[in-house]
Amino acid sequence: MKIGTTHLFVPGPTTVPEVVRRAMNIPMEDHRAPDLPDLVLDLLADLRRVFRLREGRVLLYPGSGTGAWEAAITNCLDRGDRVLMARHGHFSHLWVEMARRLGLDVVCHDVAWGEGVPVETFEQALRADPSIKAVFVTHNETATGVTSDVRAVRRAMDAAGSDALLCVDGVSSIGSLDFRQDDWGVDVAVAGSQKGFMLPAGLAMLGVSEKALAAAERTTTERSYFAFREMIAANEVGYFPYTPPMPLLHGLRASLDRLFEEGMDDVVARHHRLGEGVRQGVKAWGLELCATSPRWYSDTVTAVRLPGGVDGALVCKIAYHRYRTSFGGGLGQVAGKVFRIGHLGDVNEVSCLGALAAAEMALLDAGVPVEAGSGVAAAQAYYRQALLAEEEAAGSGPWASAGSRTRLAAVR
Amino acid sequence: MKIGTTHLFVPGPTTVPEVVRRAMNIPMEDHRAPDLPDLVLDLLADLRRVFRLREGRVLLYPGSGTGAWEAAITNCLDRGDRVLMARHGHFSHLWVEMARRLGLDVVCHDVAWGEGVPVETFEQALRADPSIKAVFVTHNETATGVTSDVRAVRRAMDAAGSDALLCVDGVSSIGSLDFRQDDWGVDVAVAGSQKGFMLPAGLAMLGVSEKALAAAERTTTERSYFAFREMIAANEVGYFPYTPPMPLLHGLRASLDRLFEEGMDDVVARHHRLGEGVRQGVKAWGLELCATSPRWYSDTVTAVRLPGGVDGALVCKIAYHRYRTSFGGGLGQVAGKVFRIGHLGDVNEVSCLGALAAAEMALLDAGVPVEAGSGVAAAQAYYRQALLAEEEAAGSGPWASAGSRTRLAAVR
Amino acid sequence: MKIGTTHLFVPGPTTVPEVVRRAMNIPMEDHRAPDLPDLVLDLLADLRRVFRLREGRVLLYPGSGTGAWEAAITNCLDRGDRVLMARHGHFSHLWVEMARRLGLDVVCHDVAWGEGVPVETFEQALRADPSIKAVFVTHNETATGVTSDVRAVRRAMDAAGSDALLCVDGVSSIGSLDFRQDDWGVDVAVAGSQKGFMLPAGLAMLGVSEKALAAAERTTTERSYFAFREMIAANEVGYFPYTPPMPLLHGLRASLDRLFEEGMDDVVARHHRLGEGVRQGVKAWGLELCATSPRWYSDTVTAVRLPGGVDGALVCKIAYHRYRTSFGGGLGQVAGKVFRIGHLGDVNEVSCLGALAAAEMALLDAGVPVEAGSGVAAAQAYYRQALLAEEEAAGSGPWASAGSRTRLAAVR
Amino acid sequence: MKIGTTHLFVPGPTTVPEVVRRAMNIPMEDHRAPDLPDLVLDLLADLRRVFRLREGRVLLYPGSGTGAWEAAITNCLDRGDRVLMARHGHFSHLWVEMARRLGLDVVCHDVAWGEGVPVETFEQALRADPSIKAVFVTHNETATGVTSDVRAVRRAMDAAGSDALLCVDGVSSIGSLDFRQDDWGVDVAVAGSQKGFMLPAGLAMLGVSEKALAAAERTTTERSYFAFREMIAANEVGYFPYTPPMPLLHGLRASLDRLFEEGMDDVVARHHRLGEGVRQGVKAWGLELCATSPRWYSDTVTAVRLPGGVDGALVCKIAYHRYRTSFGGGLGQVAGKVFRIGHLGDVNEVSCLGALAAAEMALLDAGVPVEAGSGVAAAQAYYRQALLAEEEAAGSGPWASAGSRTRLAAVR
Repeated sequence: MKIGTTHLFVPGPTTVPEVVRRAMNIPMEDHRAPDLPDLVLDLLADLRRVFRLREGRVLLYPGSGTGAWEAAITNCLDRGDRVLMARHGHFSHLWVEMARRLGLDVVCHDVAWGEGVPVETFEQALRADPSIKAVFVTHNETATGVTSDVRAVRRAMDAAGSDALLCVDGVSSIGSLDFRQDDWGVDVAVAGSQKGFMLPAGLAMLGVSEKALAAAERTTTERSYFAFREMIAANEVGYFPYTPPMPLLHGLRASLDRLFEEGMDDVVARHHRLGEGVRQGVKAWGLELCATSPRWYSDTVTAVRLPGGVDGALVCKIAYHRYRTSFGGGLGQVAGKVFRIGHLGDVNEVSCLGALAAAEMALLDAGVPVEAGSGVAAAQAYYRQALLAEEEAAGSGPWASAGSRTRLAAVR
Repeated sequence: MKIGTTHLFVPGPTTVPEVVRRAMNIPMEDHRAPDLPDLVLDLLADLRRVFRLREGRVLLYPGSGTGAWEAAITNCLDRGDRVLMARHGHFSHLWVEMARRLGLDVVCHDVAWGEGVPVETFEQALRADPSIKAVFVTHNETATGVTSDVRAVRRAMDAAGSDALLCVDGVSSIGSLDFRQDDWGVDVAVAGSQKGFMLPAGLAMLGVSEKALAAAERTTTERSYFAFREMIAANEVGYFPYTPPMPLLHGLRASLDRLFEEGMDDVVARHHRLGEGVRQGVKAWGLELCATSPRWYSDTVTAVRLPGGVDGALVCKIAYHRYRTSFGGGLGQVAGKVFRIGHLGDVNEVSCLGALAAAEMALLDAGVPVEAGSGVAAAQAYYRQALLAEEEAAGSGPWASAGSRTRLAAVR
Repeated sequence: MKIGTTHLFVPGPTTVPEVVRRAMNIPMEDHRAPDLPDLVLDLLADLRRVFRLREGRVLLYPGSGTGAWEAAITNCLDRGDRVLMARHGHFSHLWVEMARRLGLDVVCHDVAWGEGVPVETFEQALRADPSIKAVFVTHNETATGVTSDVRAVRRAMDAAGSDALLCVDGVSSIGSLDFRQDDWGVDVAVAGSQKGFMLPAGLAMLGVSEKALAAAERTTTERSYFAFREMIAANEVGYFPYTPPMPLLHGLRASLDRLFEEGMDDVVARHHRLGEGVRQGVKAWGLELCATSPRWYSDTVTAVRLPGGVDGALVCKIAYHRYRTSFGGGLGQVAGKVFRIGHLGDVNEVSCLGALAAAEMALLDAGVPVEAGSGVAAAQAYYRQALLAEEEAAGSGPWASAGSRTRLAAVR
Repeated sequence: MKIGTTHLFVPGPTTVPEVVRRAMNIPMEDHRAPDLPDLVLDLLADLRRVFRLREGRVLLYPGSGTGAWEAAITNCLDRGDRVLMARHGHFSHLWVEMARRLGLDVVCHDVAWGEGVPVETFEQALRADPSIKAVFVTHNETATGVTSDVRAVRRAMDAAGSDALLCVDGVSSIGSLDFRQDDWGVDVAVAGSQKGFMLPAGLAMLGVSEKALAAAERTTTERSYFAFREMIAANEVGYFPYTPPMPLLHGLRASLDRLFEEGMDDVVARHHRLGEGVRQGVKAWGLELCATSPRWYSDTVTAVRLPGGVDGALVCKIAYHRYRTSFGGGLGQVAGKVFRIGHLGDVNEVSCLGALAAAEMALLDAGVPVEAGSGVAAAQAYYRQALLAEEEAAGSGPWASAGSRTRLAAVR
């Protein structure tokens, strides 16, 4: 029997904030109501603030992030088009697979799982082959906890003189990590509702640049459900071409308000703080990250390598059944070799400490000789210092009395 | 400002029952949790009871019913395949359009909007052209309130010696009207969560026969998101190939329980009773249905023709803004010429009387000279008689005392 | 089995608006949290806008309206104090009973059920007996659908030179009917959360004038749970002396916002419109109201007298079981002789028409020869005319196009 | 701005389980509906299983636990009756105050805060004074985290030959700690909805023995709202004498189902396990409990003494504002000297570890030199061992494979 809260630390779907849950709990509504555009047009405009997209459009489809991958491919490219991709984790692998099944000519660079997109290799490939029509980048590889440098890819493309489209899988980054569609020259950015947007799965999202919109007008790939054109035509007047999931639209409104209230820069800073605390904890355990270098560290998910002979699936099972805590297991090449701690969305410091505490127990039960409490202690130290610094920078927060300020100072 | 309940009488999305709303209001869950299959496998099995499908599978995709249309096409047919379709309303029109865009060779029979699928014409067409690979039927054309005879189409196919696939759009029929996938020889039946299943939009559903599953193994159309194969492989072990909308899965559990508690036959009987009452009301107004003959009358939606010069959109606007009541407007060919009353899902007699009362006021305000209260009175008479007959058949219900039974008898 | 919406037309508890339901659906919170006063102090201040009380306090106790009756008595009066009351319905009867049980010396004037408080009799009684310490008035007698004239009672008290306290039961009036605590010189006004405040039961509310607060300082009746003093002391700093029902506090916030958004005057006007429509319907049926004169008509509840030989309880049972509609039965002296239609709180025109339609069927089934649809038609006519007049006064509303304005005009 | 979950560790109101939250989220219902007794009668019967009361009744009032205290006093005793009480914390102090204000002649034994009810002193007092009509015991003093021995009090009463009533405040024990009304000879047991019943505040509960019911028939204290008689008369037929909070009734149904599914003995065992883990953590910090001896340790709340010079209120403020964690502050005599960790209701091990982790940070920030992670580590060790032992006793649970069992064994 399940007692108490299930502690959810998978890298998506993420905890739905209470305010979002409440907003979704609506009686059903007519999706063709005369005043629906009041809701929809604001949503579409505000989504651009999250994608940091001034021109172009954000499109929403009933579907998952995988559907948004497909929408990017079938709208912006023709069958047979050559695209450049890297494979360095389960989700980049799946995108390569999809691209091939949908008829693209994929030039795939395999990279060690734990590393990010090989920018220099990409630049060389682009120089060598001007026929490449698009570059696909998995911004945050959820399977390995690796964040790649999208801006650098754009620079490499520019350096190589490529006019290919830059398509980015931002499913586990947009809304949590720093992402700048315009500044980074991203043509198609793919997201899903169930990660940084803190909603249930069910909305496939795409940020589409003017250049990509123009490409979509030229391509001839068969497409219907995920076609841009009908969606845009309906969006123009504030509707959808077919029934949208009304609760998710209302939830999205609440989610965007929540993100903007925190401020997108602060959202990014918080994810960095939370992620760094978790990494400090893992370091204290003496375990390795899947990500092989700090430059790849992801602030939304941490994949932890297990010592030889310990099955990551067992760690997850123990955590789930005995400690009511959900971690992500290893996928694909690293199945059984890692377990993953998601720390994105509506998460705070004490939640992360609970995750570390649960992980310590599950690791110990599975036979990994970590020191109980060690990861928690390391993260506590980091969080205390970081929060104090933040409060100091902000003038100590509205609650801090003179007495407490003194103590805060004493704490360092 | 919106005061009180919005009275929702569009033919989908339909009112979500309270028990389903509550079931959906969950904290987020891990879609790869070890015990998720307990939920998923039962859902997939129980869905077959609604489709009345013993063999084959029901598949669920994050998406809308439109996505399920696409899944049927891209999995079961190859580009260039010839298919037989009828166009007799906005939704059958859209399906024809989609089929053509996805590369099918559509033989389209246009029928007057207000009539159903032309079975004899189909039989002749099938005899004349053995190359037809599939017959597409819109079971309930939501735009005109017309239910076609799927069983008769199957008989015509058999009579013509056709081995084509029979693909049925049951979006606004399955879960509400009589539907029997096995008995009627339907190969692919398409449904959506937001009609008879009384959920928000967001789940595209397909009932797929063994024959259609086999066809999907042979076809080579590019497909990925809506591909059967990966979905089946994941479903086999109780999961999905990508993140499903968890609230909808829990809502579907509650919805199925709710349908089974009422009993599928009683669900169908209730929809007939509710629909017939609404039609009696329309008749009392002296207005015409869009459906041109009782054989086409739909028990889930009634499309009412407006007298010349009256704009159906105005009726809907008045109802929405002044009377807090949502009706469906006319679509496509009948835009402005009809308004539609949805009476499917979690609806009861008094709700329908409220719909008729609101419609009467909106019609009068829009200049249609109906008699106030006349439609309500006609429906009341029908509902009273029908419910009394039902109670009598059931032994008068648990609450009826001897005294009340006497009165019930006296009422007739 | 229960299918579809239960149509709730009892005179409380009333339908909880969706926005209030959502606001109540919170994770539990610490009732001693440092920031709780932000919520509580605003609530207490804003409640005074509903009571129209500039000086004095509104107090909230976990309890029902009955508890607020007791709080009024035990705080403001001493055992043995003489009070003047009228008994003209079940709830005024219960208040008399309580006052006697709690030790007051009640001078009770019995009035026919269906009439209101006898102002002239009260004036004479007050002149005759200067020892009367308080006058108790049931503003809206929920059992008979009778609204009394509180302002006139105050005038009578003034005319008689009485300095007694004026204590008013406003449970089914405050938040729905015109109520002005200051202007009418009401010393203690009692309300509950489950009527005009559109919340579940659970908050006993009292508006207390400065004079009544001073009285409470002098009295010596034993009291603890409902004592004013501790409540005031805790309220002063934004807390409660014992655990309050947190969901109701958040719901109250939403409810007040909802009332203020509509505007208290418009709330009163809407209740008048809805109530008058229902009364027009009853008149069309040829049935009598329990209230014997228009001066007593209540805009929150209509009690309908049944013809001889028909049991009101049967009408309610039929409505409930067969038509999923809850009406109020008769209570006390009029048990079985009336049934009651509540039309207060988050109700609109179409809801009321549904109530009338359901009542017509239940009445017919119970053997009352009303004409089906007649009450609905009469109410429709009234509502159409009233809403059109209101829109015209407001400049036709934001949605009305020139075309529709023309039609609106044509309708009359 | 509030980010992520607020971690709630006050000793009530407690976290509402999701299943209970969902059950409370109902559209409003008629509290006089014909089928309401189906709900109410089962609730009243099932509540007796929690109180472990075979004879007598459980009564529910709209109100808080404080109201139930008053109901016990005003129904079962007359003004002037002599009662025996101990004062050893804020809540026993408040009960003494109430008893005096309501006119009882209280013989109050003051005991050091941190100790429990002085059984021997009580026995002597009862022998010395046969006029004592009732003994009042605070089973679990929430302010100090002290559980007293109710069974021993009953034995002392029996030994002294007293036929006084035994009235027990079980607000923070019933539903969480071992409580046996019949076996322990408790005449009136007081509870509230917001602790072990895991509901919002709003239901005052009393378990009343036959002896106490008989006493209530004889006493003459004025009472109305909390009178037993009217409540019992209404309960007999499945209703309440005034509007009950319908959401709480449905929530109570879900809460009872949840408790029974876990099993009352297992509920008690879990609270012991959780509480013991927290105490191990406090011990590892090197801090003292407020409870002065293990015999008094409460399994629902732990009050931790702070070293001299550290303000407990500051610890709570830091925890709340900086770490989104609510602890209980000190009350009355121990205000500022302790902070309290509630661990009752729907809580599990990882939640408690989060509480300890948050407390460690807040303590450090407030200047208390605890070792970060030390309390967490101690509790982890205890929880791991305890859960493993429990699984072993239960045959290792359904999920444990042979492999994991091996590991489990290895862990010790």
